[in-house]
Amino acid sequence: MSITKPSLPKGTRDFSPQEMVKRNYIFDTIKTVFKKYGYAEIQTPSMENLQTLTGKYGDEGDKLIFKILNSGEYIDKNSVEIIQKITQSFQENNVQIGSFDNSTNKVSTEIPVSLDDLNIFNALSGAENAKTNYRLLINQLTPKISEKALRYDLTVPFARYVVMHQSEISFPFKRFQVQPVWRADRPQKGRYREFYQCDADVVGSPSLLNEAEFILIYHEALKNLGLKDFTIKINNRKILSGIAEIIGKPELIVDMTVAIDKLDKIGFDGVTKELLERGFSNADIEKLKPVILLQGANEEKLLSLKSVLATSTIGLKGIEEIETVFNYVSKLTTHNTQLATTIELDITLARGLNYYTGCIFEVKTNEVAMGSIGGGGRYDDLTGMFGLKDLTGVGISFGADRIYDVLEELNLFPASAAQGTKVLISNFDEIAELYALPILQQLRAANISAELYPSAAKLKKQMSYADAKNIPYVILIGGDEMNSGLLTLKDMESGDQQKLDIAAIISKLN
Amino acid sequence: MSITKPSLPKGTRDFSPQEMVKRNYIFDTIKTVFKKYGYAEIQTPSMENLQTLTGKYGDEGDKLIFKILNSGEYIDKNSVEIIQKITQSFQENNVQIGSFDNSTNKVSTEIPVSLDDLNIFNALSGAENAKTNYRLLINQLTPKISEKALRYDLTVPFARYVVMHQSEISFPFKRFQVQPVWRADRPQKGRYREFYQCDADVVGSPSLLNEAEFILIYHEALKNLGLKDFTIKINNRKILSGIAEIIGKPELIVDMTVAIDKLDKIGFDGVTKELLERGFSNADIEKLKPVILLQGANEEKLLSLKSVLATSTIGLKGIEEIETVFNYVSKLTTHNTQLATTIELDITLARGLNYYTGCIFEVKTNEVAMGSIGGGGRYDDLTGMFGLKDLTGVGISFGADRIYDVLEELNLFPASAAQGTKVLISNFDEIAELYALPILQQLRAANISAELYPSAAKLKKQMSYADAKNIPYVILIGGDEMNSGLLTLKDMESGDQQKLDIAAIISKLN
Repeated sequence: MSITKPSLPKGTRDFSPQEMVKRNYIFDTIKTVFKKYGYAEIQTPSMENLQTLTGKYGDEGDKLIFKILNSGEYIDKNSVEIIQKITQSFQENNVQIGSFDNSTNKVSTEIPVSLDDLNIFNALSGAENAKTNYRLLINQLTPKISEKALRYDLTVPFARYVVMHQSEISFPFKRFQVQPVWRADRPQKGRYREFYQCDADVVGSPSLLNEAEFILIYHEALKNLGLKDFTIKINNRKILSGIAEIIGKPELIVDMTVAIDKLDKIGFDGVTKELLERGFSNADIEKLKPVILLQGANEEKLLSLKSVLATSTIGLKGIEEIETVFNYVSKLTTHNTQLATTIELDITLARGLNYYTGCIFEVKTNEVAMGSIGGGGRYDDLTGMFGLKDLTGVGISFGADRIYDVLEELNLFPASAAQGTKVLISNFDEIAELYALPILQQLRAANISAELYPSAAKLKKQMSYADAKNIPYVILIGGDEMNSGLLTLKDMESGDQQKLDIAAIISKLN
Repeated sequence: MSITKPSLPKGTRDFSPQEMVKRNYIFDTIKTVFKKYGYAEIQTPSMENLQTLTGKYGDEGDKLIFKILNSGEYIDKNSVEIIQKITQSFQENNVQIGSFDNSTNKVSTEIPVSLDDLNIFNALSGAENAKTNYRLLINQLTPKISEKALRYDLTVPFARYVVMHQSEISFPFKRFQVQPVWRADRPQKGRYREFYQCDADVVGSPSLLNEAEFILIYHEALKNLGLKDFTIKINNRKILSGIAEIIGKPELIVDMTVAIDKLDKIGFDGVTKELLERGFSNADIEKLKPVILLQGANEEKLLSLKSVLATSTIGLKGIEEIETVFNYVSKLTTHNTQLATTIELDITLARGLNYYTGCIFEVKTNEVAMGSIGGGGRYDDLTGMFGLKDLTGVGISFGADRIYDVLEELNLFPASAAQGTKVLISNFDEIAELYALPILQQLRAANISAELYPSAAKLKKQMSYADAKNIPYVILIGGDEMNSGLLTLKDMESGDQQKLDIAAIISKLN
């Protein structure tokens, strides 16, 4: 085997013990809150059938799906058989060759050609059509060589799960899921090709209590992670529909929201320019202005919106939904006056508008400059893509990687030492090692994470090992200690040393 | 988008909430023991560069590696560019076309052909060479369309990790890793294409204390999982080498071990037959017989082996290693007389002999008919495959899926209810719902996992929901309850109902 310096695929990461402790801290904190609110964990396979995933994320998304080569077939000894199978399948499917339309980027299906073994390959010759034919071959080949792909998010697999397991599920189904997803995005700072999603969704319950509880879940999880100042933004797709309706351009709702979503970045003048480009008139923008620039407390905003949207049934419905959510939240937080200040009605919030049908959420920290650290919303037809109609869903997601960066920057991770080895026993020589073994056993029997350095290396090396592993205590055992039964316990942070018997050490470390 | 009934790729599984609770119980129990013995968690990416993996698992293993198509390129609009790149690469690499040798199944490299855009495709025409050329195209194409693969085990990625991070690591490096691996094996009962491995390894320490501690880790983890009767088998590659040396056939060590490894299944007669077929004489087998049929306690076996291997340096070294491990174990278990009975020296144990260089482990439960539920051993040159020499490693693995089946069969999983929602508040109507909200908040503030049924559905439906989710308590709130402040707490298992105020409920549930 050839020896090359190993490397990692672009956009992927190793996690060291120190990083894992921190990542687990984030995941465990969030999971604990999910469970407290009645959410149960599921897991789905890393690979899904390609047809489960394609068409669910738009054209751009489809391109970012990592596809898996059918196993082994293309490098084993059966290649001739494989070719025969492909050929046969070409024939059975009446595959068309030779009419690839560059403008539509599609294979023309006008002229079906019946093929045999040789025709496929013959069709590949000829200077004029070489590239086109090659593209065709690849196009025809791709579904033959890849039928599986890595999951792109947790939502589509969840919908697939619900449809496949509908008879076993007692609805409403409250599930959480923390697993990696893969996207063939161009890697850049903070964007990885493999990253964890951390989702909770409930399917089969239209109650807005769920929305309210998600706000509480965000609040409780982020508070438990030590964040002090963050904003949970809320909006409602129906309010956006109402606004588009009021200005008489319901068909331009997507253009409208794409433009006003940028208010933070490009300001009102920028938004105006974009709205004009996207087919709105100055009169429209005049009507939009008070809505876009909505100021004040949530109650004031709702009051203004009620008057603006007075004639839009759907718009008023959206306002009512937001009010119901606020009501639930206030009843659920009677003892917690601080929470209300972190919720903000933001009608510029859109987040994948085509997906959401009701409330939309987004969470931002105000302590560090960082994009959103969470988001979600309601989608009325979660499982429709797999033929199960009328199941409404609402869910949220935590951006674990960004939360990691935020906690790191604010120095909010708890001392990692607590999670690793608590005490290292030094190893002076064979006699001391033998003496140490029952002590090691006693420490572990008391549930203290303990190690004996596995060889009589220089003490300096053993100490560096304890340092590198963040081990807070070292037990030194030499001749004196063995004679007296009083072991030297060294506190690695303060450098203090104490002579204690093993019972005293155990009680100190516990 | 087309709606098809969704399905899962062959050999992959969804895990329901009930299954996840059980799986997490297994993983958490094992991880807790790993940590107690000073092992720290790492994670590596799901995908590795293809060249990191190929050549590490033998020809058969290589075929079972799931390869990932280079992202999106083959279905996006840049196919022409891609073709140009491939063509260029064909040219630069002086790719040979047209001389595929069917007998050796290899591409003849006798006649290099310089190619251009068209030559590739032209080369693909012609009746005579069509299949060969097609095969060639695929062979040349495969490395172009796939450069990444899903990890096949946790050991090679760990070796890669150690080499890449050697400057940050303080050796000996004790790591554990619990992540899925993927193999394109033919799925069958108990064999999946995606499954979790659960490994602990230490690299950079030749001390046999590590081997002894792995025995303790197996013992403690399996005991904590509730298993009562299991055997930890141990062998040593050096003893096997010694035996082959003594009978004068050191070059046949692999044949010898493959044959005697089957003793359990085919008996001594079967082993004799296989040894004869594999080049051993009747005289050899006569010498082997007492070794193969070694009986008695470990001490007796060691005594017999010492006399049989008296003239083999390597054999005696193997015996010494086993004795050292036994010694360590006994010193580490002075307060635990039960442990020793579960360790068995089994010189028929081989387990991937070419891999291991010292001690070899395998664990079997005696309570259920099941293959091994764990295994491992020492490999003297773990990181040599990536150019970092002289780092010895030793590690073990738990077979989580099999352990799951064992615990299920022996009914050893703890009541899963403890991990889910503890109490459901019923929802009679809007007024009762409003009344319930602060109660829900109080329950959760007391860290009790609680839910309010999100709509005023029929009580029967709400009760079924609690049943299906294994929720042990339901709080019923109707007119009486709201008037008196005494809520009805129903114990779902016994059916008993009690009227209690919220403080009493909280203290009862905590």
